[in-house]
Amino acid sequence: MGADDQQERPEMIGWVVGFVDGEGTFSISLFRNESSKLGWQVFPEFVVTQSERNRDALGLLKEFFGCGSIYRNRRHDNRRHDNHKEDLLRYCVRNRKQLWQKIIPFFKEHPLKTSKRQDFELFVEAMELISRGEHLTERGLRRIARIAAKMNRKVPSAFLESSETVRRTGPKRA
Amino acid sequence: MGADDQQERPEMIGWVVGFVDGEGTFSISLFRNESSKLGWQVFPEFVVTQSERNRDALGLLKEFFGCGSIYRNRRHDNRRHDNHKEDLLRYCVRNRKQLWQKIIPFFKEHPLKTSKRQDFELFVEAMELISRGEHLTERGLRRIARIAAKMNRKVPSAFLESSETVRRTGPKRA
Repeated sequence: MGADDQQERPEMIGWVVGFVDGEGTFSISLFRNESSKLGWQVFPEFVVTQSERNRDALGLLKEFFGCGSIYRNRRHDNRRHDNHKEDLLRYCVRNRKQLWQKIIPFFKEHPLKTSKRQDFELFVEAMELISRGEHLTERGLRRIARIAAKMNRKVPSAFLESSETVRRTGPKRA
Repeated sequence: MGADDQQERPEMIGWVVGFVDGEGTFSISLFRNESSKLGWQVFPEFVVTQSERNRDALGLLKEFFGCGSIYRNRRHDNRRHDNHKEDLLRYCVRNRKQLWQKIIPFFKEHPLKTSKRQDFELFVEAMELISRGEHLTERGLRRIARIAAKMNRKVPSAFLESSETVRRTGPKRA
């Protein structure tokens, strides 16, 4: 490693942490899915969103982590961002193996400096439950839902309202 | 400098660049000010805004640059952010000497990686005009207004509508 690399690599690491502190999201979403065992699918995701003109910055993240994809959210698909004139791009890592092997170890070694660190820790907690298959049990799924609710309120409120929710909204029996 | 510092300092530099790429703003505002020579005051500012819970991250910036202040925007003062439940905090550097001696050299040496780099370059261009006193001439003030309009549309549109604006809206003659 040359002198430049010794300087540049830590700066790049720092940039990734800072940019994710600003623009990143760790999320655990729960979606209705009739084909899942309990009727809900758990969807962990690491996302960084930028406007079209910052595609290069998302490309740097993709190159840095060596995984993930950049998706386009067309403006008419995203009414919450109607004040933007450009499409939004989302760098996403959804693959659980890549989350475990690349994203999680990086942010364990290089902690975030904002409150997103707490979101990250909750994300890891949920991922640990998923890796043990607990999302396939009613009790585990409920724990994951509670963790997700603490993170970014993407859990349908109906899911948390009743202790009978999982059973009640589960897949129809044949 | 110990081995840890050799690693930590570049990471901190990188974090600052990444966080500002995400959350920072370079702005040149023009305000009506009857006591200014031409009736307008030019107001350059470097700002990073965060919610209350990320006060520590703004503290890191303040410590890192060794200048600037953290201000509170109370929620009822800031209707555009009404979906936030917390007050917003703004780390601001407004002092021109500190902008010249600390902020500008840092971002020249460690360039931003998003489109904010273009905003920074326009900011420097405006600051150069100001440092030469050109904001005190009608022609210079108009150039600064055009630069500011390219950056973040904080220039009153009336200012740019007519080539006679500066004279027309200038201070009342006694």
